[in-house]
Amino acid sequence: MQIICLQEKLKQSLNITERIIGRNLTLPILNNILINVENNKLKISSTNLEIGINYWLTGKVIQGGSITVPARLISDLISNLPNKKIELKVKNNLLELKCDKFKAVLNGLSANDFPIIPKIKEKPIIKINGAILRNSLAQVVEMVSSSESRPEISGVYMKFDKNLIKLAATDSFRLAEKNIEIKNNQSLRGQTVIIPQRTIQEIIRILSDKESEVEIVLSTGQILFNMEDVQVISRLIEGKYPDYQQIIPSDFKTEAITNREELINNVKLASLFSGKINNVKLAVNPQKSILEITAKDIDIGENNSQIETKIIGNAIEVVFNYRYLLDGLNNIFSDKVILGFNTKTNPIVLKPIGDNSYTYLVMPINA
Amino acid sequence: MQIICLQEKLKQSLNITERIIGRNLTLPILNNILINVENNKLKISSTNLEIGINYWLTGKVIQGGSITVPARLISDLISNLPNKKIELKVKNNLLELKCDKFKAVLNGLSANDFPIIPKIKEKPIIKINGAILRNSLAQVVEMVSSSESRPEISGVYMKFDKNLIKLAATDSFRLAEKNIEIKNNQSLRGQTVIIPQRTIQEIIRILSDKESEVEIVLSTGQILFNMEDVQVISRLIEGKYPDYQQIIPSDFKTEAITNREELINNVKLASLFSGKINNVKLAVNPQKSILEITAKDIDIGENNSQIETKIIGNAIEVVFNYRYLLDGLNNIFSDKVILGFNTKTNPIVLKPIGDNSYTYLVMPINA
Repeated sequence: MQIICLQEKLKQSLNITERIIGRNLTLPILNNILINVENNKLKISSTNLEIGINYWLTGKVIQGGSITVPARLISDLISNLPNKKIELKVKNNLLELKCDKFKAVLNGLSANDFPIIPKIKEKPIIKINGAILRNSLAQVVEMVSSSESRPEISGVYMKFDKNLIKLAATDSFRLAEKNIEIKNNQSLRGQTVIIPQRTIQEIIRILSDKESEVEIVLSTGQILFNMEDVQVISRLIEGKYPDYQQIIPSDFKTEAITNREELINNVKLASLFSGKINNVKLAVNPQKSILEITAKDIDIGENNSQIETKIIGNAIEVVFNYRYLLDGLNNIFSDKVILGFNTKTNPIVLKPIGDNSYTYLVMPINA
Repeated sequence: MQIICLQEKLKQSLNITERIIGRNLTLPILNNILINVENNKLKISSTNLEIGINYWLTGKVIQGGSITVPARLISDLISNLPNKKIELKVKNNLLELKCDKFKAVLNGLSANDFPIIPKIKEKPIIKINGAILRNSLAQVVEMVSSSESRPEISGVYMKFDKNLIKLAATDSFRLAEKNIEIKNNQSLRGQTVIIPQRTIQEIIRILSDKESEVEIVLSTGQILFNMEDVQVISRLIEGKYPDYQQIIPSDFKTEAITNREELINNVKLASLFSGKINNVKLAVNPQKSILEITAKDIDIGENNSQIETKIIGNAIEVVFNYRYLLDGLNNIFSDKVILGFNTKTNPIVLKPIGDNSYTYLVMPINA
């Protein structure tokens, strides 16, 4: 292999491919990235056996071939070089690198031993705007369960309907649901998948640099995201996603419309008094049109703050883990937020004003 | 105690005083800050028994008194409140706090149990520009030894001369020396002190917000830095500072003048090939007017880069720990840097061009 390409392009491709690589002591080649000439283009690939990433970049190909080299090393190296032409040349399992007055030889491993990243060649099933997909995934990705005992909720649920992609994530304490409108989708209608959280995080990260359209392709046990010069292939999580929609209440005994930023600030203040159990109490007072936020801990002290709030329905007090409240509020992007309450043991629902596409639900703490 | 003051001012004072407070399980009051009315001003104090900080701020004093409250809690609380008037009121050992629609009660501890921060009332010995002091301290503070076996080099050495304050720090692998010019100083001439690294770090941090003149006062075993509304009092380190000046060479067999930024970049690149022992080799070639930077590790590979350099004297190769080289280069602020070599077992000296006030010395690794 012998190829010349620009530092800036190599740096970008390594930044994206290198991220999924961990420190693998049992199978050292998993610490490497694969550099490969394919169809007269340079292709950089990485895998952690769950996710595979392919990145194509243009350059001057003098001779074909391939090699794998330690991902961290080549990435650190390239990002410290000036934005000039870099020559890469493979001899046996060594990668020679030249840039301006800098030369290096990196010990590599044979590309033959690199795990195969599966190719998915089915027909593209759906095309979607990259920015919309990124923002929607970001609104649910944090709510995924980190517990290993229920793998089926350790990923983001995706359901393809005719005019909608439905995203959901839950850890059984809270739940986020987001609907993305799409154009007439016949081929994939009714299909559902559960995508690992890590895959979703990488998709969000890649799309934060790119505004390209994304093609989503489904295959048995796998999903492919095609984004301009980058491909992410991920295994899917097996299992049945819980029928979460039955627990989202549609009617509320109390509805409160309040200022989102004020609520965030006051929940943060109350959190300082919530002690180790994270308990913060919301009290809705329809007579005074006030939402009251309080917390109390015998060792720390207590607090009380009030927000003027439009309230329809009954007075009610509910206790929450403040972290879960904040996670929801931070993913709502309107000035005002609606809170829907029923009883002190029922979940509350948070929604942005003027946007029906996002729903966030939190279970109360039965204090 | 009852006092009203602005959120912004309280926040500033807490940001500065809170920093030195750790997590003390045996003496809980050390996790607290002292709030105190003194001469009709609010005074915030903190101590970790090595350093004490006093901060004075103005406000409306309704009633005198004092209390101590957990530093982290009050600091987090105040910084999340809006920039409005805050009322602080002490009842028994409780601090009541009101701001707009927010109320809180914090469990405190009696001010009587708070460790006394000593007062130093000697005559101010020296006045010095804050920005100059800060920048000078920052150029040496990192080179202090973190080893506990030689406490005398775990601080910054300060020597007061007639027209000069000399600062030095070393961990016996490298050494930094900085000279600050001062006006005629008679009272303190010849005195030397060793100041704990942590104290110097706090002084740098406080002075990064303030451009005020600093008064330095010496007392037995203690030093006081007076900066506008803030006072830092620190114990001094006992012991004899090593006679470091005898190891700084004044003549060199080889002198190289090279571009500082290029050298930094190339040392960083070489560091990637230096393996676990951090060894990077500098080779000076007077014939070719080249400084060559190389590293080699059997598992990683090898590299080589060259910088055009003005060289006077003999060819020489010396091996260094790259971290020590970078620490020096990062504290030199000229475009070009002079490197002075003697033999491969002698230290090299790094100096900025056009500034004789700073000297950095690194011991080689005898490879």
